[in-house]
Amino acid sequence: MITGKNYIGSTLSAEGTITYKTFNPITNTENQHTFYEATEAEIDTAVLLAAKAFTEFRFVSGQRKAAFLNAIADEILALDDELIQTYCSETGLPEGRAKGERGRTVFQLRSFAELVAEGSWVEATIDYGIPDREPAPKPDLRKMNIPLGPIVVFGASNFPLAYSTAGGDTAAALAAGCPVIVKSHPMHAGTGELVASAIVKAAEKTGMPNGVFSNLNSSGIEVGVQLVKHPEVKAVGFTGSIRGGRALLDLAAQRPEPIPVFAEMGSINPVVILPQAISDRGAELAKTYAGSITLGTGQFCTNPGLILGLKSEELTNFIKQLGTEISSLQPSVMLHPNIHQAYESNKKNATQQEAVQIVSSYENEIKTNYARQMVVTVEGETFLQNPKLHQEVFGPFSMVVQCDNAEQLERIIASLEGQLTGTMIAGDSELENFADVVNALQNRVGRIIFNGVPTGVEVCPSMVHGGPYPASTDSRFTAVGIHSIKRWVRPFSYQNWPNELLPDELKDSNPLGIQRTINGKLA
Amino acid sequence: MITGKNYIGSTLSAEGTITYKTFNPITNTENQHTFYEATEAEIDTAVLLAAKAFTEFRFVSGQRKAAFLNAIADEILALDDELIQTYCSETGLPEGRAKGERGRTVFQLRSFAELVAEGSWVEATIDYGIPDREPAPKPDLRKMNIPLGPIVVFGASNFPLAYSTAGGDTAAALAAGCPVIVKSHPMHAGTGELVASAIVKAAEKTGMPNGVFSNLNSSGIEVGVQLVKHPEVKAVGFTGSIRGGRALLDLAAQRPEPIPVFAEMGSINPVVILPQAISDRGAELAKTYAGSITLGTGQFCTNPGLILGLKSEELTNFIKQLGTEISSLQPSVMLHPNIHQAYESNKKNATQQEAVQIVSSYENEIKTNYARQMVVTVEGETFLQNPKLHQEVFGPFSMVVQCDNAEQLERIIASLEGQLTGTMIAGDSELENFADVVNALQNRVGRIIFNGVPTGVEVCPSMVHGGPYPASTDSRFTAVGIHSIKRWVRPFSYQNWPNELLPDELKDSNPLGIQRTINGKLA
Repeated sequence: MITGKNYIGSTLSAEGTITYKTFNPITNTENQHTFYEATEAEIDTAVLLAAKAFTEFRFVSGQRKAAFLNAIADEILALDDELIQTYCSETGLPEGRAKGERGRTVFQLRSFAELVAEGSWVEATIDYGIPDREPAPKPDLRKMNIPLGPIVVFGASNFPLAYSTAGGDTAAALAAGCPVIVKSHPMHAGTGELVASAIVKAAEKTGMPNGVFSNLNSSGIEVGVQLVKHPEVKAVGFTGSIRGGRALLDLAAQRPEPIPVFAEMGSINPVVILPQAISDRGAELAKTYAGSITLGTGQFCTNPGLILGLKSEELTNFIKQLGTEISSLQPSVMLHPNIHQAYESNKKNATQQEAVQIVSSYENEIKTNYARQMVVTVEGETFLQNPKLHQEVFGPFSMVVQCDNAEQLERIIASLEGQLTGTMIAGDSELENFADVVNALQNRVGRIIFNGVPTGVEVCPSMVHGGPYPASTDSRFTAVGIHSIKRWVRPFSYQNWPNELLPDELKDSNPLGIQRTINGKLA
Repeated sequence: MITGKNYIGSTLSAEGTITYKTFNPITNTENQHTFYEATEAEIDTAVLLAAKAFTEFRFVSGQRKAAFLNAIADEILALDDELIQTYCSETGLPEGRAKGERGRTVFQLRSFAELVAEGSWVEATIDYGIPDREPAPKPDLRKMNIPLGPIVVFGASNFPLAYSTAGGDTAAALAAGCPVIVKSHPMHAGTGELVASAIVKAAEKTGMPNGVFSNLNSSGIEVGVQLVKHPEVKAVGFTGSIRGGRALLDLAAQRPEPIPVFAEMGSINPVVILPQAISDRGAELAKTYAGSITLGTGQFCTNPGLILGLKSEELTNFIKQLGTEISSLQPSVMLHPNIHQAYESNKKNATQQEAVQIVSSYENEIKTNYARQMVVTVEGETFLQNPKLHQEVFGPFSMVVQCDNAEQLERIIASLEGQLTGTMIAGDSELENFADVVNALQNRVGRIIFNGVPTGVEVCPSMVHGGPYPASTDSRFTAVGIHSIKRWVRPFSYQNWPNELLPDELKDSNPLGIQRTINGKLA
């Protein structure tokens, strides 16, 4: 049941006077529930409760944390239709997408449950002492990963489930042993509260300390700012815009005790289509890419916003075909009027730059909050000279850059800011001839794709969802997959510690039966 | 041979007009060589050369990188007596220490050589595709660690070899495939240049690209500032003071593209001595700790600057014994008059705080630049109330805090800033009774030691040399041991990439025979 209140641990609380509602972009009306923005006192209480919970939660066994994570998944599924309907009413996204995203969220939670139940993720490393070593004895040293402390998670507007309240950041943090305080996304506050209730219920059922999770409502930036500044907060996870992520990074860096911020932010996901591929299957590629550009109304961080090709008749044809394909698709609704407005304004900015040609723009009548998809094209030199053309237009928009030659193509790629993904579309054995282009692209991205589309982020250990700034604030981590737990842990070393007082992970007898590295060898 | 010039790759360069000399604290005179501070143009050239070298170096095989690292070790040893004499004349440290530190440096280089020659450090992770999976095909994804790009390394005043020019940061970065630009420490510029010449020679002998290493002289902060701001620099390693490290962290955070800074900074390394231990072997502990406090004139980042005990007659006796032991030791010289001055001034600051009692201070006649060791003591409440008492006094100084009870002890530990180490000194089965104290301590440190001294940092995979801020700027990494390579790499993912074009680490046939995780299982 949606109450509009904050969860401070297991307590529902609504002490504030600032209220807001979520919005249904399809009906173009507000949804019914009123949400109470968290007050300064509520924020402080939630963080202090998390810090207190941490003293217990950090020692909770992997088995018990797994039970907690699995219970969250169960409770989310138990929310059933209420969750799906709330999700749809707060996003305009279809039921199929809601259920798919729920499945992904549940899968992520269960993956982390499996990871921590098994236990080897702590990377236990043991070097036995050599008491009679000369000139000095070698101490016994044993290292494992331990949790950082309370984590603040900012959910994404475009993934109310998989990258929000109980999404990847939260699942990874709880798995690590870190309490989580979610700054609820105002566009899907109802979905957020429902998921929060599932987490709180799961925590109670599995005996987790109160405060292991809190959910704070917020319609502006103040709640987030106060959270990131709070001395008891030890790290931040964020998915959203470059401006938002950078603001949090700056705040965290200015603290007396700076803390890590992992923000997954904007990306235009360059796609290079090589000549052979375009001549072999230009029409098919145009169709595929029209689909990828408009998927989910273009509201994916892996949306292909930039397509790079070498000038040729075939490229000209491809651009025409892409234009035709994309105008033939039915427009769809955006998540929120604000997002729709930003889309239209960013699109206008892009098209008003010098020498930008509109290839195709959907011009028929359209419902409120629906997005008119668009493809534009520019010359390579124009793109190189104008950094404004490198900016993301969040929505069903893409820009085709016509490069003079491979050398210019390489320079353009090298000039790009960091990206989540890069894609190479090539004909048989064509890729070998563009090694410099591939190398330049690799240097700018977190994931490189061959003959596919960047949309679709598989949840598996080999996935990197991140990349050089501003794709993320720290390219050394991924936001997706079990290794995303590394964002929230630190290595810790015990020297000559009594064996019986070591955590089980490091005891001589290895009671958990985990994989460990002993004296440099995997055991 | 020392020339006083900068190494811009393999080229010796001295275009600047700012010059300086190093200083021999024992003779209290300047050393002979004149060093030329790098100019803006030289800095820019060095970084651009590093960026160019990176395009080649990042693809150099593990075997060839190992040959390079081993060649550096060989060339350092070949410098022989010139290196040792220069080291001693620039630090006042004895020959035995110089040779010991050289051994450590060579060991670190060879450890990284072994690591990259073997190759499994890239953490290759493969998830095979499932083309017929419903509702969507599962792509083939393969992930491994790749280097970040050019790294700037700031050496430490107190470790001219092991934490400077070819020290841990440099060895780890080169092993990762990152070119290195060293901002030479002005106090040991001659030692730095000699080691730089060894690296350059090794790079030439093993066919590494020019620019894989540069060494820039600098007597002030400008060279470092320009380096950290340079857009082609991708990360920073630093060992030194909190003020210096924080300044670099702030600079890096304010860049258009923020970059990671790993700074290993100050620490007072709290040592808790429990009642049973003090009553069993107080005299022995006093002797041991007098030695640890004065080791290397107290110029170790793991120096025990804070000793915590529970008020008792035994503690009073221990404090007296510690005072007696420490005054019985011969004072030794500090690294530089500036460091000596800072020591005297910080010590004065500490002793002038209210209710600080001097237990023992060496008062006999003393040579210039030698440090008068000191032990002081305060009440627990005094320490809790005055954050100035928490500040590091770099040198042979320690403060004994007399706590009223275990609860106050725990509160004091919780109030400390982050530390590199924490030590528990306990009698038989005594530790079990102080679980809360141990937990509080664990929360503030990177390494916890039982019945030992914090000085002495073993180089092995299980070592954590780092810890919560300000012990380091990012507790998720260590500065010592092979895992310190993780600071300079990022995970990178290939999706559906042609097998023959994948790096060897990810090819189906596993030509390098490295350990990999395939479909979630170690293979």
